[in-house]
Amino acid sequence: MNKKIPTRIYLSEDELPKFWYNLRADMKNKPDPMLHPGTLKPVTAADLAPVFCNGVIEQELDDTTRLIPIPDAIQDFYRAYRPSPLIRAYYLEKILGTPAEIYYKFEGTNTSGSHKLNSAGPQAYYAKEEGLTSLTTETGAGQWGTAMAMACGFYDLKLIVYMVKISSEQKPYRKALMETYGANLIPSPSNTTESGRKILEGDPDTGGSLGCAISEAIETAVKTDKCRYVLGSVLNHVLLHQTIIGQETKTAMDKYGIKPDIIIGCAGGGSNLGGLMAPFMAEKLAGKSNARFIAVEPASCPSFTRGRYAYDFGDTAKTTPLIRMQTLGSAFVPSANHAGGLRYHGMNTTLSKLYHDGLLEARAEKQTDVFDAAIQFMKVEGILPAPESSHAIKAAIDEALVCKKTGEKKVILFGLSGTGFFDMTAYASYNNKTMSDYIPNDADLERGFASIPGIPQNG
Amino acid sequence: MNKKIPTRIYLSEDELPKFWYNLRADMKNKPDPMLHPGTLKPVTAADLAPVFCNGVIEQELDDTTRLIPIPDAIQDFYRAYRPSPLIRAYYLEKILGTPAEIYYKFEGTNTSGSHKLNSAGPQAYYAKEEGLTSLTTETGAGQWGTAMAMACGFYDLKLIVYMVKISSEQKPYRKALMETYGANLIPSPSNTTESGRKILEGDPDTGGSLGCAISEAIETAVKTDKCRYVLGSVLNHVLLHQTIIGQETKTAMDKYGIKPDIIIGCAGGGSNLGGLMAPFMAEKLAGKSNARFIAVEPASCPSFTRGRYAYDFGDTAKTTPLIRMQTLGSAFVPSANHAGGLRYHGMNTTLSKLYHDGLLEARAEKQTDVFDAAIQFMKVEGILPAPESSHAIKAAIDEALVCKKTGEKKVILFGLSGTGFFDMTAYASYNNKTMSDYIPNDADLERGFASIPGIPQNG
Repeated sequence: MNKKIPTRIYLSEDELPKFWYNLRADMKNKPDPMLHPGTLKPVTAADLAPVFCNGVIEQELDDTTRLIPIPDAIQDFYRAYRPSPLIRAYYLEKILGTPAEIYYKFEGTNTSGSHKLNSAGPQAYYAKEEGLTSLTTETGAGQWGTAMAMACGFYDLKLIVYMVKISSEQKPYRKALMETYGANLIPSPSNTTESGRKILEGDPDTGGSLGCAISEAIETAVKTDKCRYVLGSVLNHVLLHQTIIGQETKTAMDKYGIKPDIIIGCAGGGSNLGGLMAPFMAEKLAGKSNARFIAVEPASCPSFTRGRYAYDFGDTAKTTPLIRMQTLGSAFVPSANHAGGLRYHGMNTTLSKLYHDGLLEARAEKQTDVFDAAIQFMKVEGILPAPESSHAIKAAIDEALVCKKTGEKKVILFGLSGTGFFDMTAYASYNNKTMSDYIPNDADLERGFASIPGIPQNG
Repeated sequence: MNKKIPTRIYLSEDELPKFWYNLRADMKNKPDPMLHPGTLKPVTAADLAPVFCNGVIEQELDDTTRLIPIPDAIQDFYRAYRPSPLIRAYYLEKILGTPAEIYYKFEGTNTSGSHKLNSAGPQAYYAKEEGLTSLTTETGAGQWGTAMAMACGFYDLKLIVYMVKISSEQKPYRKALMETYGANLIPSPSNTTESGRKILEGDPDTGGSLGCAISEAIETAVKTDKCRYVLGSVLNHVLLHQTIIGQETKTAMDKYGIKPDIIIGCAGGGSNLGGLMAPFMAEKLAGKSNARFIAVEPASCPSFTRGRYAYDFGDTAKTTPLIRMQTLGSAFVPSANHAGGLRYHGMNTTLSKLYHDGLLEARAEKQTDVFDAAIQFMKVEGILPAPESSHAIKAAIDEALVCKKTGEKKVILFGLSGTGFFDMTAYASYNNKTMSDYIPNDADLERGFASIPGIPQNG
């Protein structure tokens, strides 16, 4: 196992995964089921059918099947932009002067600029297969909306994207990109839905929020013929699709005999980290690995490190099922000075459970520290990272510097989930030293927690 | 040779080129030498030394050495983002319904977004090796400035970029990206140089031009200690560095027994096309290939199809050596409604000579037609192309449609030189149907031709 390790490892096409890996199947202590908010009983496929495509409902509710075949058409779709490279950060290691080996899986080489396309493709495919003609979704920072616009352009489906109004004004190029792929962009809140009109009546000048955009997208999907709603993170079927990332990574590492000691990912809703770490966590659950797993979240939206493990709603209008997760409360909204995504109040249930059970660590980072790390990285590695992904860079650098002190030659793997091409406003504010940090105080958090419904829960 | 051809072919690191290939060495009819404008004698290394680094001067003047070793440090630099993928356009073929096979070499996976980094890296490396501390350059659309900013960030050199003023105002994010890498951006014309002040005196409200920015960058380089000027296209050393593209492509094609019948590239200064086609042209020059080579230029700046083959200056201030090339005259400026790069009045001497001798074809395309092709491409191939690169897409689609009529199963190769992430204003104008075409009329061209000096020339 002394092969020289190339800077970039690409798998060949026949090495690409043919199955998604369902981590929940290997967990003895499974995440709690979603509950119907009226009956407080576990939701059924029938409950979800008016909102989601059948293909993803089946995946969402399945916590026992380990390997779920990737349809041939989706394997074809993946081949249009995958494999993504696994990169050895030789240059970063050198400037840090660390004995650690650092690797990152880079998901930003497709036009959506991030890993989001890995789930957008399957979701559009299932919609098309089921005879639907249109989809709705929401987007904040814009990565998910762009990925869905690409997927719907590919499968010739109509797409309505409710884009948080302040974001659509601040990111006109994100809007233009989605429109170029044929999507219909609606700044949210809008007068196209009851929930939008209600919010506008109360506050005509609001810049909108992700929670409100979700409510509008769901309402439109339910009211439109042959239309469903799609979501780009948080839910388990999204995490399932993202396991393509971790499986490619593990195959590439196995070829070179590399075993990661520390696996790091940024976490907003959790799909990117969950997808990267799934096959490595499988080994830990099987007692075959002592690897550490680290979720890195923004200090401005700390659902792991300062949130509660409780049943909560997925949106501010409280129209979704109840989800047992790490949450800041659906009423929590991070400060507008927080750049990029990772602004969601909750977290994927599988990751929340693993965190609760001590299998997953978490840390929160301030945005100026995150951008410091991004700049250090981009100057030597030649990739402009998304603000989201830069949270993982920050933690990887910190762990590599610990190795520098201790002399340990650990293997660090992190997920570089996307590029920052549409985040130049944030980089410009960093360059101009006008970027600031925001850390919610206890009173801010209490206001969020007050919105969590008091559902009795065990464990 | 019936291996299934994957969608993406990546070379392994040990298959990457160790030499740049100097096409001029294999040309019986070599391009004419650059002339000193005072003496009208071929320029010497000493003539160029105040402006350029010694490393590139040697390469610029060498038209006999076939293979020039790539320094180990530059091979390392290339490994940070290369190999670039050679992609089989299965999806584009399918929607066109063509029997042709279409391949493209995609150079947009690095943060500069284009092939420009292939020359920026070596140029910064030579500067560092020679003990220089700073460099100057100009940028219009911004790809070259970004690439140089990245390379200077990597080699810890100061960089001053004179950015065409109108472009720096229209593309604030390009500016922010270069600044993030540590470059000093100066909108041109500026009051930091004599040539800039002179132009501002005459026209205080001018939006600037590439020619003026070149003059400012050269002036500053010559007047600054331990500083030189770098150029991102047109010159033969730039084309030499870009042969990394063609060599990777040929190695990948040879592995699968693929022989291209038609090789297509967009052409502004010519380095991208020149780099892609060089090793294939070598086979044609050796009588081993009947491949066709097609340069695609914008109808708004048609230096091949409507230019003259003559000695001309490289900049509007007429400070450069005289270059025998296809030219519209250094006073020619394409309309402001032309999006993206490919706005230069002249063309690389090697490509100009090959065109003059009938070995290279050329065609000019209108920008709305080019964007039509870009949209068709991006919806199925998942890559947002640069407006520049989309000229090559347009020609590739046209050639594939010819095959559809004739039934011929030709192999088409084109260069996808970069991404359009910083060209969303242009895409938005296409979406809004406010994009227009500009084709210079004969009087426009005559005004440009009038600026060509009357140097006697043979052949």
